[in-house]
Order: sequence, then structure tokens, then C-alpha cells
Amino acid sequence: MDDYFNLDCKRMRDGEFGGATAVGLETRTSSSPPCQYAFGPVFLPFFLLKGLIMSKAGADEGGAGGCGDSAKQLEAKDEKGGTLLSKLPAGPGWTKVSCPCCFSERVEPLVVVKLGGKVGPETKRWLIKMIGAPQKDGGAALLAHPGEDASGDIIVVSAPRCTLLRAAEELGLCKTYRGGDMEAFSYNDRDNFKDSDNMEAFLTLAERQYIVKYELDGLRAQRDLRIPGLPESRMLQKRDNIWQKLSSAGVVVDTFPLHNRKKLKDLGEAWYSGNQLAQPLDSVNDYFGSAVAFYFSFLDFYTWSLLTPAILGLTISYFSGEAQKEMVDSVSGSKVIINDDDSGPMISGHMLQAMFSMIWSTVFMELWKRRSSSLSYRWGTMNLAERFAEPRPNFHGDLGVNPVTGRVEPLFPEWKRDLRMVLVSVPVVGLFLGLVVLGMMCFYWGEAQVKQLHKDWDSLLSQALLYIPSVLHIVYTNMLGNVYRNVAQRLTEYENHREESAFENHLTAKILVFTFFNNFAVLFHIAFFKQDVPLLRKRLASLLIVSQLVNQVTEVVIPFLVDRFISAPHRTESEDDPQEDKFRNQRTLPVFPGLFAEYIELLVQFGYLSLFSCVYPLTAVLLLINNITEIRSDAYKICNLFRKPFSPPVANMGVWQVAFEVLSFVSVISNCWLLLLSPRLQELCREGGLSSTNVLLLAVFGEHVLILIKFIMAALIPDEPDWIRKKREQMEYTSMQALKEQHGLFFSSYQNKWASMVQKFPPPLVN
Amino acid sequence: MDDYFNLDCKRMRDGEFGGATAVGLETRTSSSPPCQYAFGPVFLPFFLLKGLIMSKAGADEGGAGGCGDSAKQLEAKDEKGGTLLSKLPAGPGWTKVSCPCCFSERVEPLVVVKLGGKVGPETKRWLIKMIGAPQKDGGAALLAHPGEDASGDIIVVSAPRCTLLRAAEELGLCKTYRGGDMEAFSYNDRDNFKDSDNMEAFLTLAERQYIVKYELDGLRAQRDLRIPGLPESRMLQKRDNIWQKLSSAGVVVDTFPLHNRKKLKDLGEAWYSGNQLAQPLDSVNDYFGSAVAFYFSFLDFYTWSLLTPAILGLTISYFSGEAQKEMVDSVSGSKVIINDDDSGPMISGHMLQAMFSMIWSTVFMELWKRRSSSLSYRWGTMNLAERFAEPRPNFHGDLGVNPVTGRVEPLFPEWKRDLRMVLVSVPVVGLFLGLVVLGMMCFYWGEAQVKQLHKDWDSLLSQALLYIPSVLHIVYTNMLGNVYRNVAQRLTEYENHREESAFENHLTAKILVFTFFNNFAVLFHIAFFKQDVPLLRKRLASLLIVSQLVNQVTEVVIPFLVDRFISAPHRTESEDDPQEDKFRNQRTLPVFPGLFAEYIELLVQFGYLSLFSCVYPLTAVLLLINNITEIRSDAYKICNLFRKPFSPPVANMGVWQVAFEVLSFVSVISNCWLLLLSPRLQELCREGGLSSTNVLLLAVFGEHVLILIKFIMAALIPDEPDWIRKKREQMEYTSMQALKEQHGLFFSSYQNKWASMVQKFPPPLVN
Repeated sequence: MDDYFNLDCKRMRDGEFGGATAVGLETRTSSSPPCQYAFGPVFLPFFLLKGLIMSKAGADEGGAGGCGDSAKQLEAKDEKGGTLLSKLPAGPGWTKVSCPCCFSERVEPLVVVKLGGKVGPETKRWLIKMIGAPQKDGGAALLAHPGEDASGDIIVVSAPRCTLLRAAEELGLCKTYRGGDMEAFSYNDRDNFKDSDNMEAFLTLAERQYIVKYELDGLRAQRDLRIPGLPESRMLQKRDNIWQKLSSAGVVVDTFPLHNRKKLKDLGEAWYSGNQLAQPLDSVNDYFGSAVAFYFSFLDFYTWSLLTPAILGLTISYFSGEAQKEMVDSVSGSKVIINDDDSGPMISGHMLQAMFSMIWSTVFMELWKRRSSSLSYRWGTMNLAERFAEPRPNFHGDLGVNPVTGRVEPLFPEWKRDLRMVLVSVPVVGLFLGLVVLGMMCFYWGEAQVKQLHKDWDSLLSQALLYIPSVLHIVYTNMLGNVYRNVAQRLTEYENHREESAFENHLTAKILVFTFFNNFAVLFHIAFFKQDVPLLRKRLASLLIVSQLVNQVTEVVIPFLVDRFISAPHRTESEDDPQEDKFRNQRTLPVFPGLFAEYIELLVQFGYLSLFSCVYPLTAVLLLINNITEIRSDAYKICNLFRKPFSPPVANMGVWQVAFEVLSFVSVISNCWLLLLSPRLQELCREGGLSSTNVLLLAVFGEHVLILIKFIMAALIPDEPDWIRKKREQMEYTSMQALKEQHGLFFSSYQNKWASMVQKFPPPLVN
Repeated sequence: MDDYFNLDCKRMRDGEFGGATAVGLETRTSSSPPCQYAFGPVFLPFFLLKGLIMSKAGADEGGAGGCGDSAKQLEAKDEKGGTLLSKLPAGPGWTKVSCPCCFSERVEPLVVVKLGGKVGPETKRWLIKMIGAPQKDGGAALLAHPGEDASGDIIVVSAPRCTLLRAAEELGLCKTYRGGDMEAFSYNDRDNFKDSDNMEAFLTLAERQYIVKYELDGLRAQRDLRIPGLPESRMLQKRDNIWQKLSSAGVVVDTFPLHNRKKLKDLGEAWYSGNQLAQPLDSVNDYFGSAVAFYFSFLDFYTWSLLTPAILGLTISYFSGEAQKEMVDSVSGSKVIINDDDSGPMISGHMLQAMFSMIWSTVFMELWKRRSSSLSYRWGTMNLAERFAEPRPNFHGDLGVNPVTGRVEPLFPEWKRDLRMVLVSVPVVGLFLGLVVLGMMCFYWGEAQVKQLHKDWDSLLSQALLYIPSVLHIVYTNMLGNVYRNVAQRLTEYENHREESAFENHLTAKILVFTFFNNFAVLFHIAFFKQDVPLLRKRLASLLIVSQLVNQVTEVVIPFLVDRFISAPHRTESEDDPQEDKFRNQRTLPVFPGLFAEYIELLVQFGYLSLFSCVYPLTAVLLLINNITEIRSDAYKICNLFRKPFSPPVANMGVWQVAFEVLSFVSVISNCWLLLLSPRLQELCREGGLSSTNVLLLAVFGEHVLILIKFIMAALIPDEPDWIRKKREQMEYTSMQALKEQHGLFFSSYQNKWASMVQKFPPPLVN
């Protein structure tokens, strides 16, 4: 015991255990469990008891002065060595771990819980107790720290080893096994997994933070109880979700994961600071989690895949000799109408481009699926067990026994959900799509009316009136979009999905359909109804160039300016602040808005390219240039301009993959149609003596054949590389064998029991 | 020992152990193992030794007279009681079981192996030894009986309990567990499965017989060896497939499962003798296996599903008032051309029928998938482990370690197979399809030429010439079909599939595409190129009626006549023959040709119905009548006119399901097209002032929307009922848990070991 304490003191002199100096006796008892265990189980119950009830004294003492000091000294160390960045010593302030193996000398703050302004200290104490209590007592089995003092408005949360490991098993994460293969992590078998004693190497930062959120979200009242400091009306019923209740009561205002400045700096250097071509995807996965990493991997893969169509597009444009002219036309927006009688080579390029983009989009999607599956193997998310875990907090239903897992949880029948989707969601979404079309029709009608008016009157007033339809349409579209987003959220909530991912996917799908419709309705209208190829080309070019310019400005220039002139001064001044203030400061950053906008930008791009690029061969070149900067600006944005997001482990892009695939099928239809519209082809047909009906029949026939070919190609290219398939089958085989062996063990133990019974009571010898 | 023997003698007096009377000493030692075990392990090695080498004396003695007698007495008993039908007593002739638990007093003959005429007794003895030897010695661990004598040309094979159970585990069969649920069978856990001590209740007859074939097919040489009685050139190399080698050497001519007359009679009575509406599908699965049972289930489901379109078709025909007229027209084949200006209501019926058949075909396929999945649960084939079992005998490749199961077996890389399919199979199949089209074109050209000739000359000779093109075309088509079947077999063999089911599916798919093309090319030609709806209607009606008449004659009338006047007398005369002759007689029946022809008949029917029925509303009625008789005639055929087929357990209809689904998509295209051709619609459009191009565009648009709706419907209707999904998830969850528990057990045993180590070497106490 003395030895340990001496060591402790030595460390304190070195500044590592800075915070401990102010704590006195508390430090000695709480930081020495390893010694305690050397002396047997006498102290154990006392220790466990202490773990359960957060010691008020410790919290009060450790808070105000101690932690501030510790933070300062940590920062100082950080500046020099950079090894112990933003870690708090285990001793003061933190609740005690409830199991001995989880004790570690330093605790890494993972998540900050922001409390409401009017929350009393007794409520905060109760909350800290709940967070720290073991799971069998209805707690989250995490570590909590009250920040500056018991009446402050934040709680810093971390997680002990056992909680992390158990949650990793529950989530179905795969980790490196002895042999080097990835295997589904099993808590009981933890010693055979690489690094399972060092949580910072074993789980990624994103995983650790997500697990904290997962545990907090999973807190449920074990019996009816009153939360101290809250009115009677906020009573918790048995099995109520505590975190939801606290949020709705205004106790918990916010829960967000903390940035790790050191890691973030390293990541930024490898990601967007230099001129490196490859992205540090593994580090992104480590820091931001697999959802973000999948987005950037896809962006990367997509950008490199653009090289081929870009080269083809450049070649076609060069040989048709029209590249420059068109560029000028489209940028200046001049009303030079491109002649209908385009020169021969241009049209053959048109056909080449159409054929190429049909094949390209299929091959691209199939290869991405392969890449995606190897990434999910690499990141250990190929075997997620969300179906078997607890349902998401908002899921409601009658309590019952889950027939699959045998746990008691809310149940909601599948058919009811299906019914709600078919009878409510689909009609409502359809209604909104109808409203978009209605808006567009009104716009065209209004525009025609106003133009007529202007032609008849030709006054200044009528010229001003010319803008009215556009303005009204924009306002209408925006309002509709906002209303729709709310409606989609409600609808998806009403559908009552059990898994978080299912909820996300259904919500995304709803918004996606609408946004897509909004973006492409005009282009489709031009292509299919007006049948005006030159207008389509002009519109596409201007859309591409304008939207990219706007994007570049909003995504690169503005963030850079904001960061340089607004955030940066703010940041330097906080260098000497106590750690808690820094945590609190992270809340001043805006919430990360999610990847929806980023994905939809890519999808719209992909749509321009695969659907309409044959009329404007330079599309791919423009997109390539845009995406190369996009990678960096997105990286910069997520690193510096937002709060760190929670990110659940995911195995693929989810509904986005489907969206891209659907688009690649629609591209066949659109390309066939555009080919048909090409004046050159129509001329050829007239020369060949084919009636327009027969040409149309030929085109329809060709389209069906191409779709068939696409289906066959998609079926023939396997969705996962051979080695992944083998690994997956191996996992299946192992678990099949395990099931049999377990049965066997049951049987053999039964046999053994029987054998020992026989030994004890030998059967009477009858001759 | 004396007691047991007395019992034995008593049984013999009762006539049960009839065959044993002629055997003498052999009987006493071999039929009393239970007594041996009561006296300890002294006799065990001797017994095992005897099990390995088939005793020649026993075979010779037990064969000629004994078995003949036994068979006679069994038959006598059979006539009266019907309980012990075609079971042979365990004693004489049979090889000995190698494990004590498998001993049973009567052995059920399952499979007959027919040897070549020139096979010497030493080869037969060696073969019997191989069949009886335990698997660790490279044998099949089955039971063999030499028939009449050692030089006879058959071997009767059965299987002991352990072999059956182990194979059931290897195949991944599901059986009823304690709780009543189906679970993957595990040998070690056998005591918890219902009926696992009574093989005849536990495994179906079809499963038992398939397992015998599976074990025989799996025999591999453990080292280089010479088969006694065969020339040096037939040496077995290590890991050679013995059964294949024996077949190619002419030693084994045939291997076929035996009918069980009693069960067959019961099955027939429940199936086709009475007027019952429902088929005894479970009994069919019991007796013929799941492949056959799935065919009859589908036929059943399909027939009942025909009711709705049949009623609709009748209604439409009745209201259009043309039903009778058309029937007469089409049957008599009169050349009354149906007027283009059909009456109004007929055409609206036409449209109604087209819309209906599009929706009906989707709903039908989706509901069948649900039914199929619940059947496969019921029959315990939902979890087949073919991937993890031994590869099929004809599979070849370099020896290596299977990365999934860790077993040494031939390996063949996936990409090589894909390459072979893409570069060889696809072009060759395409070539043959091209030849079909070429043949059709030549036929049309020839017909036109001959008609012209006849018109010009109009002589008797030219009239005879009129038939030449048709005759030539039929000859050409038949020849091509035969050549193609061989080529398809070779191609699939060349593709080198690992699993039997994959082989079957690829072979079926190849023949299927060709047959389908052959059947529908003419109709498609009429519909899409000639665009002649009346001709299509006439052709369809005559095809339906002629093909059904031909089918009924070949499938009902001829079999009935053959059975009554040719087979039946033959059968009665063999009533008093020895059992072995009866076994041999089953070989005189033709080999069951497989279900290909039956399925293709259904598929062609389904094609007529879903693709073209809108032009001939009575299609469904005709099909319904046909199928109701078809069920009975097919059942009669498979029960009485063929050898019993081996049937591997299958989980669904395999490639046939895909074929039906593809057809249901093609039906959308075809129906839209036929709607477009309908003169009424064209008239309406002319009245409405729409140009033909615009009508076509509308039709194409409608087609795309309908296909989209079909996709959405197929996606929305779940492929398996809710309760099956839950069961499946439960199985997945259990096996996931088992994997974790196993790891845990490994860990805890490691801990235990460590604890005992600590106990043995307590750490020195240092104060």
C-alpha cells in the first residue's frame, strides 16, 4: 500500500496526477484498488457501495479548485509532450467504477451532458448517481464527473472498460481476433481479442462516444419513482425511458461528444492541410465513426471514378470542336440558340456518351458495393446486431416478450407498421409530390401569362411583373420543402420503427424522393415534354456551373472566413480557461447537420451525369473539379465548424446506395430517350425511310434490352469480393458449429452428470 | 444370454425371424449383441472385426435359401397384418453394424445397387466390405446385403441409426426439438429431438434413401489401391471417388431406391384414387422427398389461384357473348377470320383482362413465396448446409484446405467459374437461340416460297410440297433440341459447380431458356412483328386445346392402359417371387425422368395465361380444367409408372421460381403491347385526335409505371410470413449466442485451469 502511494506521489510531483493534490484522503482510498485486492476481499463491499453512491464530498471538493488546476497542468503537459491530452485523472470528482477490472488511473472525458439552467443540485446528484450505478440497479454503469461543482450545468461522462466491452458485444462490433481475422466481439472471450485491455486502441473514439450515448439512451426506470427536485407531475413510471423524460422535462438540454484537439489536429493535417491525394479514411472512421467515413469513402471512390467519363467527355468535346464555344455560351448565358443541325461528329459523340454512361453507372455501383463491403469488414461493422439489441428510445408498443431474444420489451406488430406506411405515408408523400408538380405547372402558366402581358403592354411595371412568377415559385418551393420535412419526420415517427437505422432510412427515403423530384422535375419536363435538347443543354450547363459556384462559396470561402476572423480569435482567448469551460465552449459550435445535404449533392450530381450528360459532355469534367475541392472543404467543415456528431456504427450507406442504384436504372430510360431526340438520329432515320413510330419502337426495344443487360451485369458482378465472402461464410460456419458444440456440451455435461451419478450409485450387480 | 436366445426362438416360431431358421450358429452370435454388452467389453473387438469384414459364410448360407424363405414369409405376413412390410431381419446376410447403439432387430432395405454382369464375387465382396466399413476406415458405414448369394448381381443397402443421424446433421436438416419448434439437427444433442431413436419416424423414407446415396457417392479412396477382380488400369488413386470409378468401370450399373408397397398404396389412396380436393402433401414429402413435394404444392397452389382469372374470363366471355362462337372456331380450326371491328364490350373486357393478369401474376408469385417458405420450415429444409458439406462427386479442382470449413477437399476458384460461364456458356447458348430464330425465319421464307410455287403451278406435287417446310422445321427443331440438351449438360459440367443444387439450377436454366424460346418464339413473332391479334387468338386457342388434349392422352390414357394391360399382369405373376427378384423387378420400370417436363408445362401454361390471355379470355378456364386432372395424372404417374427417384432435400423450387417471376415481368410488356394493338383503343385514339406516336409514347409511359408498381408490390409483400421470419431470426440469435457462449466456455475453462494451477502452486506470501 505504501509503495503504491509513493508511486502515486511521484506521479503527482511529475504533474500527472495534478488534480489529486486537493483531494486529501479521498485520493488515497479511491485510487488504490489494485492494492486493496492484493489484501483480499475485505474492502470490496465498501468499495462497491461507494461506487454506487456518488460521494458528495468528493464532488464538491474535487470540483471548484482541483479540476481547474488539473486542467491547466494537463494543458501545459499537452503543449510539451502531447501525450496525455484532455484526460482527467481518475481520482477526484468522478464516480467510482463498480467493478475492479475497470479501474484505470486516468479517465478520458467522452461526452458532455448540458443541463438546464434551473436544475437543482439534488437533481444533478441523482442524475450522476444514475449514470454511475451498475446496470443491474438500473443505471448506465458509466463514469460521471460534475464539472466545476455540484451546481454547475454540465456533467462530463466517460465509460469504464467493462461497460464499453459489454456494449461492443451488444452492438455486434467485430474486432481483431488472435489469428488476425475480424470476429464478432464476445465479452467472455475478451482476452483473445487484440488490445482488449486498452480501450483507446480497442474501440475507436467514435465507438466509445456512441456507446456512452447508447447507454444513456437506454436508461429505463426499474420502478415508479420521483426524480429529486422535479415536480410530482414528472414521475417516472416503470420502464419509462429516463433520458427522454429528462429531455422533455428540460433537465437535460443537450448531450454531445467531445472533440479531442490533439487527434483532430493530426487528422486535419493528414486530411485537408497538405496536397495528399488519398484520404486517411481509417483515421476518419476512428474519429468520426463509420457513417461519416462511409460518406467520405464514397466521395473518394466516386471522384476517382469520374476520371473515365471526364476523359471521354473532354475527347468528345475536343473532337467536336465545340467545347469552348459551348462553355462561353453557357457561362455567359447568352441567348445564342444552338443550331438544330449540329455537325455529324458531335452527334456520334452524343450517342457514344449515352452508351458509355449507361455502362459506367452500373459498373461504378457494383464496384462500390464491393468496396463498401470490404470497408465494413475492415471497420468491424459487417455483423451489426441492431435487430437483437434494445429498440430505439422512441419506439413504443405493448410490453411483451420478444420472441427472438426472449427479453421483455415493447412490441409492435410488423403488419401494423406496413399498414401505416401504405395507408398513410405513401398517400401523404404522393400528395406533396403532386403539390410540387402543381407548383411547377402554375409557374409555367404564370410565366406564359406574364410574358403575354409584357408583350401586350410593354411597360416598366410589366417588366417588373416578369420576375413575379419565379419569385413566387421559389417562395412556394421553399415553404413546401420546410413543411414537408416536418411532415416526413412525423410520418416516420408514426411508422414506429424498432431500429434506429430503419428510422433513419425511412426518413431519408421520404425526404430524398421529394428533394430529388424538386431538383429534376424541371429537367425531366424539358427533356420529356418540351423535347427541347438545346434548352436542356443550356439549363444543365448553367445549373452545373451556378450550383457549383454557390457550393464552393458557401462550403469553402465562407467557412474559411468565419474560421479565420470569427472563430480563431475566440479560440485563442480560451487557451487558459479551465477544462470545463472548454467543454462548455464546444457547445457554442453549431450542431453538425448530418450528411443528408452532402449526400443529396452527390446524388444530384450523379443524376446530372448519368441522366443528361450525353447532351453536355463536359459534365464529368466540371464534376471532377468540383469534387476534388469538395473533399477538402467537407473535411475542413466537419473538423472545424461543427460540434462532433455522435455516429452509430453502420455497415453501408443504407438508403443512399439504393437511391444511386435506382438513378442508374432511370439513366437507361433517359439516355434512350435523349438519343431518340437527337436530331442527327432522326435525320438518319428519315434517310433510311423509317417512320417515326418504327423509330420509337426500335428505341423502346433497345431500352428494354439495355435494362436487361444492366440487370444481368448487376447480377453477374458479385456484391462482395471473394475473400469477404469466404470470411463471411467462415463466420456462419463457425457459429453453426458453435451451436452444435453447445448442444453437444449440454449433452456431454448431461452424460458426465449421469456418469458421476452412476459412480455414486452403482447399479446392483445381477447375475 | 440364454434368455435372449429364447426370446429369439420364440420370435422365430412366430414367423417374424423367418430367415434366421436356415442360418444356424451365425444367427446366435450376430443377433445377440445386447447380451454381449451386458457381459462387458471382451467381445467387442471381435464384434467390430466381424463388422468390418463381411463374413462370406454368412452371406452364402443366408442368401440362397434363407432369404427366399424369409421374403416369402414376410410377404405372407404382409398380406395379413401389413406391419412389417419389406423389412429384412437383421441377422443373416447383412454386414454387421459397427456401433452398438445402431443395432436393431430388423433392417429396412432402402437402396438396391445393380452390378454389372461380369462382376466377380471378389469384387462384390470388396464392395460390400467398403459399404459396411466405418467412415474412419474409408467406408460408408452403411449396411449391405448380398441378395441371393455372393455371385448375384445386386447388393441391397440400408443404413444404421448413427450414419443416418450424422448425415442428417451434415445435410443441415431441421427436426422437431423438445419445445416443438424446428431446429437444425445436431448429433450430439440427438436426445432432445423428437423421435430420434426411431429412424422411421425421425427421418422420412426419402431422406433415408437420399442419405444412403449421399454416403455411397461420398466414398473416396483413402490411399492408392487396386479393386479386387479389376484390371491394373482401374487402380484407385488416393481421394478418387470410388462410386464414380466403379460406375465408369461397369461394376456398378445402377443405384436406385426401393418402393415401399404398403406406403405407396396408402399414399395412392389419399392422393389420386378418391375425389378428395386436397393433396396429402406431407405424405408426398415423406415418400418422394421435398423436391417432388414442392412441385405438387406449387401445382396445387397454382391451380387454386386459377379460379379467379377463370371466373373473370368466363364473365367476360359470357358478356361479350362470343365465347361459344370462338370455341367452335378455334377447335374446328376453320378459317373464319374474326372481324377487326369487334364489338365494344369485348374490347373493354380485353383491357380489363390485361390489367388483371398483370396484378394477378405478381400477387400470385408473392403469395407462393410465402407459402413456399412455410412449407420449407414444415419440412425441415429451411436451413440446408449444402455449402458446408462435401462437394458433389463430379466436382474437380486442386486439393487444398477449404478456408471456410478447414477440410481438405478439391478447390476451384469462383472467378474461373464465372469466366467460363461468361466466355463459354453464354455465347454457346446465344448461338443456339440464334439457330432457333434462323430456323423460324427459314420456315417462314420456305412457306412463302412454297405457297408462291403452289399458286403459280397449282399441281398435286406443289400441294404436297406445301407440307415440306413444316416437316423440315419440326425435324430441325427436334434435332436442335436434342443436340442442345447434350451441349447444356456438357457446359454445366464444364462450369464445375461445387454444389449439386447449383449444378441442377444452372442446367435447368440453360434448357429452360431454350425451351421457352422454342415455345414462345412463334407467338411473340405474331404479336410483335406481324401484329395480328386475331391470328394470335386463334393460334393461342389451338395451342391450348391441342397441347392439352395431347397431354391428357399421353399422361392419363396411355399410362392407364399400360398399367392395366401391360404392367398389372406382370406384377401379379411376381407375387410369389423371392424378395430379391422383386427388388430386381423394380429396375424394369423406367427411370423417373425428373420434374423438368412437368415444370416446363406449367411454365408454358403460365406464359400463355399471363402474356397473351387478354386476347383469349377462356385461357384460365381451360387451364383450370386441365390442371385438376393434371394433379391426379401426375400423381398416378410418379407412383406407378416409374422407379422411385432419389430426391435431395430442397428449400424451394430453385430456378423455376425465378423463371415464373421473370415471366410475370415480361407479362407487363406483352400486355401493354397487346392493349396497344387492340383495334378499339386505336379507334378511340383516332377519335381523340392522338397521333400514333403519341399513343405509343403513352403506352410506353404506362408500361414503365406498371413495372414500377409491380416492383413496389413485390418489395412490399414480404417473402415469408411473419412467424417464419421470427423463427428464422430466433435461430440466428441462438446461434449467435451459442458462439459467444462457446467462447465463454473456452474462457471459463481457461480460468478454471488457471484457478487449479493457482491452487497447486499458491503464490508465495510476501508481507
